[in-house]
Amino acid sequence: MRFADRLNHVETSAIRKLFALLKDPNIISFAGGFPDATMCDAEGIRAAVNTALDEEPGPALSYGATEGYQSLREQLSIFMASKGAKDVAPTDLLVTTGSQQALDLLGKTLLGPGDKVIVEGPTFLATIQCFRLYGAEVITVPVDGQGTRTDELERLIAEHRPKFVYLIPTFGNPSGALMPLERRRAVLEMAVRHNTLIVEDDPYGDLYFGEAPPPSLLALSAQVPGSRERLVHCGSLSKVLSAGLRLGWMIAPAELLAKAAMCKQFSDANSSTFAQATAAQYLKAGRMPATLAKVRQVYGERARVMGDALRREMGDAIEFVQPQGGLFIWARLTGAGGREKDANVFAERAIAAGVAFVPGAPFYASQPDVSTLRLSFATAPLDKIEEGARRLGKAIKG
Amino acid sequence: MRFADRLNHVETSAIRKLFALLKDPNIISFAGGFPDATMCDAEGIRAAVNTALDEEPGPALSYGATEGYQSLREQLSIFMASKGAKDVAPTDLLVTTGSQQALDLLGKTLLGPGDKVIVEGPTFLATIQCFRLYGAEVITVPVDGQGTRTDELERLIAEHRPKFVYLIPTFGNPSGALMPLERRRAVLEMAVRHNTLIVEDDPYGDLYFGEAPPPSLLALSAQVPGSRERLVHCGSLSKVLSAGLRLGWMIAPAELLAKAAMCKQFSDANSSTFAQATAAQYLKAGRMPATLAKVRQVYGERARVMGDALRREMGDAIEFVQPQGGLFIWARLTGAGGREKDANVFAERAIAAGVAFVPGAPFYASQPDVSTLRLSFATAPLDKIEEGARRLGKAIKG
Repeated sequence: MRFADRLNHVETSAIRKLFALLKDPNIISFAGGFPDATMCDAEGIRAAVNTALDEEPGPALSYGATEGYQSLREQLSIFMASKGAKDVAPTDLLVTTGSQQALDLLGKTLLGPGDKVIVEGPTFLATIQCFRLYGAEVITVPVDGQGTRTDELERLIAEHRPKFVYLIPTFGNPSGALMPLERRRAVLEMAVRHNTLIVEDDPYGDLYFGEAPPPSLLALSAQVPGSRERLVHCGSLSKVLSAGLRLGWMIAPAELLAKAAMCKQFSDANSSTFAQATAAQYLKAGRMPATLAKVRQVYGERARVMGDALRREMGDAIEFVQPQGGLFIWARLTGAGGREKDANVFAERAIAAGVAFVPGAPFYASQPDVSTLRLSFATAPLDKIEEGARRLGKAIKG
Repeated sequence: MRFADRLNHVETSAIRKLFALLKDPNIISFAGGFPDATMCDAEGIRAAVNTALDEEPGPALSYGATEGYQSLREQLSIFMASKGAKDVAPTDLLVTTGSQQALDLLGKTLLGPGDKVIVEGPTFLATIQCFRLYGAEVITVPVDGQGTRTDELERLIAEHRPKFVYLIPTFGNPSGALMPLERRRAVLEMAVRHNTLIVEDDPYGDLYFGEAPPPSLLALSAQVPGSRERLVHCGSLSKVLSAGLRLGWMIAPAELLAKAAMCKQFSDANSSTFAQATAAQYLKAGRMPATLAKVRQVYGERARVMGDALRREMGDAIEFVQPQGGLFIWARLTGAGGREKDANVFAERAIAAGVAFVPGAPFYASQPDVSTLRLSFATAPLDKIEEGARRLGKAIKG
């Protein structure tokens, strides 16, 4: 069969192949990229879906507006306001089938062969592939312990004139990094200065463990004149409420939002109204603050225990910034004392020792740092985190 | 903002613009394209979602396999067997976010600029736009009262060497036509003879009013050696069970299915597992046969009443084949007795008289027949159907 040329640029993710190896129940996995499903508020969701079926069975079980289910758009507008973005009207957002679809719609509306996009190195794997499918050349801006290097970003914007810059400023996958306020302001200012579109993907911003992070680029845009017209913000219910509802949203300038909605007609017509009505009832019932408090507490403890255990068991063979939120520790093998420095090699030894993580190289669109690795603390209970770290410590000694 | 070139080929559908006019409650609408939401088995769906949350809350609320939720794939395999396609294994199908996504994935995997696709004239509007977004040239094969003109189809295949042929053989939107067995066999034979991929979209095949229609191309492919490897079948739960679950599926040769699954990773990662687990429990509970019997009875009666009323009120000013299934009457204004022959003009007069339908021209990728129109009998109660036909009769007299 003769496939479209665009498929030449992509492949099934390297991570998917790794997961096929993880069926052995004796292996402790820090490889996952997902939140802990057992923490979902299943009873709250059950109450919400039953209310939706009581109060609005027709609309909840029918086709709906491509832009989104009205009551969900209203609730998301309120939710965004609670997070500091106080001027997002329901009509300013498009409900998407997970935030992955927001990325796909950005590709569909904006990218063609020859266009350039700047992403962080490392960044979310499916983003790179998604944009390449539309023919884009993906340029990498380096990340340090404070997220995107904004000095490098400005240089790359000037050099490449990208269609847009894709950033995960808050607890990104895989970096876990938190971009401080000054860099956020710098990103918005350079968006205006260079007339460049910035895409802020924010699936993890609610998952902070101590103090709240600095305002999102969206919230901060109110303070930087002209930046809001050059900003797209993608949100998601998948990391906090339920990935099974498969709901995200995109906030974008009106002209772009209209084009994305038109494209969505031909992508999937509308996201599940059954899921949207359920999410709207859940938010309306006021359950979100308690759910957020719970996941912050649980992930915060797991992150702390994993960080302590890695430092204790692996010593100077590994270095990382202790995450203040999100689901991941992003680390680098130092090679200190002649120990293994290549995360691909180390991953094989770790699996032999009964513990798995994801080597970092696939998360780079270019120039991978093979000493990096991603460890998820999201799904393992505390004793497994301790034991997994001990196994990593043994494996690194060789 | 500079959008991708692909957006030059599409626009928001003409039908969407029409619907903005239909908010007046005094207008009887035959314009809709959707099933009757009030017929959804809301209590059956409630039972299914509660069972899913009892038995499998983790998987139902989490991310899932891109290919589909395992229990739903199993149930759909059984469902397809009940409709005569007895050899569809769960792994032979990809669950999609409505069958619209199946069309999008076909575009993404197969179509690029310069490629050709053959569709019926008339055909489903969002199909034309969906394929054009991927750069395809859309060629039209004419339809008569027995569906696609297979003689013309073979000529066009030989002339254009299309990437694929897209057909709705059973009660298509908008034509409502039913392709007889001989033409179905001819389509499969020419697929083999010309080594051409055929896409059978079958959202309406379950909605028959009397005798069951001839076997789907998929079921029939068992009798035509070599045809199954050149056939894609798209199914949907939207017309019978609930459009709000937003679930469809695609059955395709393994190589194509794998590419479509890869592309789906970057489109929306997976369809809502919450909706998929619900649909699987619904099918497993054995509720589908009763639901099917009910919708067939209700739509069958509405179709009969509308057909009789149109013949009575409009006489020889209109002609149509009485549908044996589906949601639509596809008709042509004859101009007999000097009456209006242009459905666009007639649509305006009809709205002034308090009744709406969709003129047929937008359903043609090329060479529109402006005397055609689509009337949906799906959502209006019987007395409104009678009254709407009376208004059409007055409007046609001028």
